[in-house]
Amino acid sequence: MKSFDERLPFVLRHSSIARVDGDRIYTLDRRKYPFEVLFYEMRDSLDIYRAIKDMVTQGGGPLELSLRYLSTLGDKDFDYIKSSVDLIVFARPTNTQMKRTLYGILERFGSKGIKELAENAIAYYDFLYDKVSDYGETLIDDGDSILTTCFAEHTFFLSLIKAREKGKNFRVYVSETRPYMQGSRLTEPSLRELSFDAMLIPDSVGPHLIREGKITKYMTASDLAFKSLKVVNKIGTLSNAIAAKVYSIPYYAFSLGFDDRSEESLVIEERDGDEAKRVNGVRIASRESRYLYPAFDVVDPEFVSAVVTPDGIYRRDAE
Amino acid sequence: MKSFDERLPFVLRHSSIARVDGDRIYTLDRRKYPFEVLFYEMRDSLDIYRAIKDMVTQGGGPLELSLRYLSTLGDKDFDYIKSSVDLIVFARPTNTQMKRTLYGILERFGSKGIKELAENAIAYYDFLYDKVSDYGETLIDDGDSILTTCFAEHTFFLSLIKAREKGKNFRVYVSETRPYMQGSRLTEPSLRELSFDAMLIPDSVGPHLIREGKITKYMTASDLAFKSLKVVNKIGTLSNAIAAKVYSIPYYAFSLGFDDRSEESLVIEERDGDEAKRVNGVRIASRESRYLYPAFDVVDPEFVSAVVTPDGIYRRDAE
Repeated sequence: MKSFDERLPFVLRHSSIARVDGDRIYTLDRRKYPFEVLFYEMRDSLDIYRAIKDMVTQGGGPLELSLRYLSTLGDKDFDYIKSSVDLIVFARPTNTQMKRTLYGILERFGSKGIKELAENAIAYYDFLYDKVSDYGETLIDDGDSILTTCFAEHTFFLSLIKAREKGKNFRVYVSETRPYMQGSRLTEPSLRELSFDAMLIPDSVGPHLIREGKITKYMTASDLAFKSLKVVNKIGTLSNAIAAKVYSIPYYAFSLGFDDRSEESLVIEERDGDEAKRVNGVRIASRESRYLYPAFDVVDPEFVSAVVTPDGIYRRDAE
Repeated sequence: MKSFDERLPFVLRHSSIARVDGDRIYTLDRRKYPFEVLFYEMRDSLDIYRAIKDMVTQGGGPLELSLRYLSTLGDKDFDYIKSSVDLIVFARPTNTQMKRTLYGILERFGSKGIKELAENAIAYYDFLYDKVSDYGETLIDDGDSILTTCFAEHTFFLSLIKAREKGKNFRVYVSETRPYMQGSRLTEPSLRELSFDAMLIPDSVGPHLIREGKITKYMTASDLAFKSLKVVNKIGTLSNAIAAKVYSIPYYAFSLGFDDRSEESLVIEERDGDEAKRVNGVRIASRESRYLYPAFDVVDPEFVSAVVTPDGIYRRDAE
């Protein structure tokens, strides 16, 4: 039996997300993958901040990278560690999982060393991924055509891996996910690496396929999920979630746990529109054009069939 | 008062769509605009076929280009003209407007010369554009935020131009329209050329803005419209039309006339997915990946508020 890590695609392995070598830390540059396999070098929290802000790594990457960085700070005092954390969490305002986890470690600082606290947190996330995917696997049926958006990472990939191990066959349609193309560059190559039946589509094609009956389930990660089943995820999620409801297929969002803040305090990151005017460094819109690029969709509970968590599957009450 | 043609943006002027010079005919290469302003040279029907097939021009461009080409065939016999038409209409199976118009001209061949028939048809389309936009203008209110997909050409632009002439102010959000980026490359630059308030968005952002109340109307052209108000238009139309319905804003589709074929005979063009793996010639997905790219959405009548035609505005019965 392969280890937890070995079953995952290259992009999601611990050694790709954060590898310590001497006084440096390296992360796979997800902006360049799969066209180039380059590791981005960092030394201090400002480097980490920049890497996260510039999307060198994204999704769950920033959290694991930050934890791995903290694990190297065994010889630093609390103030040094706290100011590092303050800087890092500032890089992506919508990533409350990272914020909660890193500040949680600061609160427990002293009970154990920072190295042990950070490494325990990494191991705990592996445990959560495993739990979520145990539930996620049960939602996949033999013969499914699953649509996904962006890069749903460990929970989604482990759900697929476990479903296949139980003999289920299925296809995965992947939205390319403009403007960063996480679907084209991370999800589809990772599915192909693991020999899954994968098909890329432009972001606009999901509702079309759903209408035609070619999709049986829509599944994504979530950047935030609330107990109401309101879900925040990558822009593009809403259009497919609405179409799923209209054409009567389920939408399942994966989450490592519900957010306990008030939904009203939600901060939706609006990224620089100029980022969207280039793809792989090439201009695709005029320099003079104005470009609006909100990074996340808010999906209201009426369009969410269930949220899959480490504690089980929370379904919307039958209507 | 500027002429009909002078009020239009550069891309839509007769001299950009089809210009005859000696034994050559030229069309603005819409694949390269606005990054390069290049005219594509053609001599015979095979060149025209290739230009249309390869999307050198698209939307209403193929029809006007074909008509202008036919107008140069005054010294050819019926068989030559017919075989040219047969070839040209084969280039884009969903473009039934072109098919109907060109075969209609063949039917009337002999009553007048091909030059006069073709030129009359071009003038007749200008008349239709003018009529549709007279109705379209009435649907635009001062203060509107209009979302559009792809490049809705004459009818949409003339509606906007006429609305502004009546003192109405509004903003237009433009979906970039992967994979060809007609929104980024044709609609937004053309709106900017005419000093309209225009904002580009990735295709996935429309439903997000509609949910947030930032869009008051969704408007597109249509490649086909049926009396039932079923509409066929560029892929990406469905997601916004569904969101418009769910969040209670109207969706208006512009049409030069209803298609009288049976809806069951609908042929939806599926284009080569490899086209979608490049943007402006640059690879954005792996060579090995499979890419599904259906070119058109079918929007069911429940999601269409009205179809705007030369004969008036056909509204869905109030529910």
